[in-house]
Amino acid sequence: MRTTVGIIGAGPAGLLLARLLHNAGIDSVVLESRDRAYVEQRQRAGILEQGTVDVLRAVGAGERMDREGLRHDGIELRYAKKRHRVDFPALTGGRSVTVYAQTEVCKDLIALQLKEGGPLLFEAEALAVEGADTDSPSVRFRHEGREELLECDYVVGCDGSWGVARKAIPAELTRVFERTYPFGWLGILADVPPSHDELVYARHDRGFALLSMRPPVSRHHPSKEVASLPIESFVSRLYLQVPEGTDAEEWGDQEIWDELERRFETEDGWRLERGPITQKSVTPMRSYVQEPMRYGRLFLAGDAAHIVPPTGAKGLNLAVGDVVTFARALTYQQETGSAELLDAYSETCLRRVWQAERFSYDMTTLLHRAPDATPFEDRLQLARLERIASSRAAETDLAEGYTGFPLD
Amino acid sequence: MRTTVGIIGAGPAGLLLARLLHNAGIDSVVLESRDRAYVEQRQRAGILEQGTVDVLRAVGAGERMDREGLRHDGIELRYAKKRHRVDFPALTGGRSVTVYAQTEVCKDLIALQLKEGGPLLFEAEALAVEGADTDSPSVRFRHEGREELLECDYVVGCDGSWGVARKAIPAELTRVFERTYPFGWLGILADVPPSHDELVYARHDRGFALLSMRPPVSRHHPSKEVASLPIESFVSRLYLQVPEGTDAEEWGDQEIWDELERRFETEDGWRLERGPITQKSVTPMRSYVQEPMRYGRLFLAGDAAHIVPPTGAKGLNLAVGDVVTFARALTYQQETGSAELLDAYSETCLRRVWQAERFSYDMTTLLHRAPDATPFEDRLQLARLERIASSRAAETDLAEGYTGFPLD
Repeated sequence: MRTTVGIIGAGPAGLLLARLLHNAGIDSVVLESRDRAYVEQRQRAGILEQGTVDVLRAVGAGERMDREGLRHDGIELRYAKKRHRVDFPALTGGRSVTVYAQTEVCKDLIALQLKEGGPLLFEAEALAVEGADTDSPSVRFRHEGREELLECDYVVGCDGSWGVARKAIPAELTRVFERTYPFGWLGILADVPPSHDELVYARHDRGFALLSMRPPVSRHHPSKEVASLPIESFVSRLYLQVPEGTDAEEWGDQEIWDELERRFETEDGWRLERGPITQKSVTPMRSYVQEPMRYGRLFLAGDAAHIVPPTGAKGLNLAVGDVVTFARALTYQQETGSAELLDAYSETCLRRVWQAERFSYDMTTLLHRAPDATPFEDRLQLARLERIASSRAAETDLAEGYTGFPLD
Repeated sequence: MRTTVGIIGAGPAGLLLARLLHNAGIDSVVLESRDRAYVEQRQRAGILEQGTVDVLRAVGAGERMDREGLRHDGIELRYAKKRHRVDFPALTGGRSVTVYAQTEVCKDLIALQLKEGGPLLFEAEALAVEGADTDSPSVRFRHEGREELLECDYVVGCDGSWGVARKAIPAELTRVFERTYPFGWLGILADVPPSHDELVYARHDRGFALLSMRPPVSRHHPSKEVASLPIESFVSRLYLQVPEGTDAEEWGDQEIWDELERRFETEDGWRLERGPITQKSVTPMRSYVQEPMRYGRLFLAGDAAHIVPPTGAKGLNLAVGDVVTFARALTYQQETGSAELLDAYSETCLRRVWQAERFSYDMTTLLHRAPDATPFEDRLQLARLERIASSRAAETDLAEGYTGFPLD
């Protein structure tokens, strides 16, 4: 089997890359170790930056997103019982974000790819990338019980932090940058409309809490109108900061609601609506970057090269940035013969990656309470929040970071 | 002895307060434990925020400052051999800072006070504040070998972090917020014009360095023109981050210059001029706040209530903010009979104090290298500096902080 670009992984990065290449007339093959049902159910973040929305529209995968996604023009910061709204378009010259689950992005891209793209093989487990430092790299993979070889001009590893792609880069050529946090997120899905129409990020002495939302999991929308679903049709997605290593089952439903209520507390009598909890899980928090993101003709994209804590909602958007950068660089190479942009791939991506790492770290430390936080650090957090609430410059800095760094 | 306001300490805070009260027709007595020569030679920071400059002018202490001070419209950030200038007036609507040593501010205020103000007693050592929680507080002090009592309506402690004022507040009513840093500044004064006409803040893998300047210590300026001295007449004031507890004598002159040269290194061939080192000392770094800043009729101002690391050049300016707030509050009380502003003194000051603490902490952690810094933290620092250099919002946030928070 032979193709121009071998893509490992059919998450949003791999699927979008296949799409971008298809539209540029470059053929590719996508290998995905799991089956289609699994990929289409994998629950992840769902905040799309303006740049991500623009790219999905440009590749023809924006129709359902425009119909079912929820445009958000701001977030609310909550601290010391106070509420402060950050108005994205007013601060950034019109930028906003869209709430549309990653799972739905994947479904849309899979449907498109199967309809009119190159091969997308499910249950095709990549075993190793070979010859990355030669002109003819290949991916050895197992499919339908047989081991096969996908010969390529380029390989792009979109296979996440546990994938085989990153392992093909000799350890002595890589540098790893890492930070773990002594807490995680206990996330619940609850069958009740969200108590606020935008995301609420709460800093509380007892720890961080986040109010978010998600379109109802099962629904039927025959309508073709390009209009967002009403907020009332969404279900609540809520998160609580919990100590690292917490088991979700330690927390009873009543206890979760009581704790959420305390952390979202305001002085103006805002109320958190409760409902049946339909899902409960704990997400660990980690910052991670592997440099460089390229080795010969192997390119890493998304989680294969970097992880951010979920506070800034940057993971999916960073992956989109990487594959857009790769697709542009390869298109340029095919059109001009110059490998200049491909050679700059790692450096170009890492500039954006480190800005997102910085932003995600800052949002995390701004809002979470470290178990060993000193009284001085508590006051610093409050001073930072007061600064954002009172300085247009500081608020704009946050709004620019949240709505996303340009995809150059 | 009796007065309306007993002021402990003749640093810039105490001296300026006496001046502000004098101009408002409120009498005061200043007690200073040291002699005049000592106070006029005590070397401290010398960056005056716009608001501080405005206040000094307003009280009639601006003449020599306007003639000899150096207006600075920006600073330079240096990192990864790159240079980035932050343009204060362009980012803040015209604000700037003035380089004029604290010692000179004190000399000007002392001369004014002795000429036309209330009593300013040198070698008058405050021993204790008594009756702070009554309507008639007093300061017991020793002067010319005798113990005396200064009876007041109000006492303001401007006597620094080792003074007696803060000790008069019962410990069970106070909260202390503190942060120490595992490094200090080795500062030198060198008899050579500064190699750059603005301050240079350098972040380097080997540690922080600062290029600053000071007017020549001894000089004669009969001129009455309101014009800054030329930069060439200044001497260099330079600082190196060194491990906590370093003895200045451990460092030879040659070694200091070599290290400064390394840390200020640029890719464009900038040169650091060397000259004879005339002074060498080590400053420790600390963040400290004591809350509240008021107990009954005793008010704390400046270092008596809070310490910042020198990176943000905020210490003197914060003290000015405190005494301006007190003078306004007391004037309001005398004019209207309402103690509303006096009652709000601590809260009003602490809002500004915590913004300055935050800013000073951020400038410090942005530029210094912690001995246990991880590779992730190093990259974060560089990403922060890149962000400031590329986002007008982030740069404005810094410029606003540096030129000063409003004195409400």
